[in-house]
Amino acid sequence: MSNELKIEPIGIIETPFQQAEGTPIQPSRANGARGKVYVDARFWPGLQDLAGFERIWLVYWFHKRAVSSLVVTPFLDQQRRGVFATRAPAHPAPVGISVVRLIGIAGGVLDVADVDIINGTPLLDIKPYVPEFDSYPVSKAGWFDQSSSRQHLADDRFEQS
Amino acid sequence: MSNELKIEPIGIIETPFQQAEGTPIQPSRANGARGKVYVDARFWPGLQDLAGFERIWLVYWFHKRAVSSLVVTPFLDQQRRGVFATRAPAHPAPVGISVVRLIGIAGGVLDVADVDIINGTPLLDIKPYVPEFDSYPVSKAGWFDQSSSRQHLADDRFEQS
Repeated sequence: MSNELKIEPIGIIETPFQQAEGTPIQPSRANGARGKVYVDARFWPGLQDLAGFERIWLVYWFHKRAVSSLVVTPFLDQQRRGVFATRAPAHPAPVGISVVRLIGIAGGVLDVADVDIINGTPLLDIKPYVPEFDSYPVSKAGWFDQSSSRQHLADDRFEQS
Repeated sequence: MSNELKIEPIGIIETPFQQAEGTPIQPSRANGARGKVYVDARFWPGLQDLAGFERIWLVYWFHKRAVSSLVVTPFLDQQRRGVFATRAPAHPAPVGISVVRLIGIAGGVLDVADVDIINGTPLLDIKPYVPEFDSYPVSKAGWFDQSSSRQHLADDRFEQS
């Protein structure tokens, strides 16, 4: 298709989670789960100054998700919802964003905590988490505000078989 | 390159900003600037339930940025920084994320405020802003925490000529 844009991974994310089932659904429900981010050596100069940030955004490619679906039943609800009103890994663009805690950097390897990402996930980008830009603690959040689900872990509903 | 991943826009973002110079550097410094997000008709079913959210993430393609650079002088600093420690549009992956306020939805057109995006930007994804997942108001933010710059608008340092 002429409209396609091309993007290349800059590294890979290593986590304890081998498949969707049992992977935390979000960093805030990851119970501190640890992971490592391996950045390709040619990008290491870009990591300068990152160590001062407590949290970072990982932008990544949902390499194990199933085909996209425009209406889904999200993990925290019983009802079907438009996919853009959910954080399910079933959006047309298979791109995920997660705020993780940055524990340390050694060479091109980032130690991170609160990971909700499957092992082997291709890393597309790292951005610093900046409260002035990213934090809106009292923003109304539609059906999420009604959800009382305490679910922490995903099942395989969005994963390729 | 064999490693390339392909992604397709799902719509386009219309804003008052025709070039990088004069575009707000972040939603939090956009002074309420309004924009419209045109979602392609085939994706409209995915917009169901989105109206209940006060803020949404727009994920988009930096179509006017210059080549990437691993070390940059960001808008809010005088010093050169690793690009992954900045939100400059010069990361290897030309993918931006912005939290904008959702004013309303009519058909496949979203009225949004606090836009920091150049007119004609290809839209890749929409995600709901969920405070539980996205809001960390007191996260340490490295060099940003020392910046006293009140700059609101970008210049053309990262734009293609």
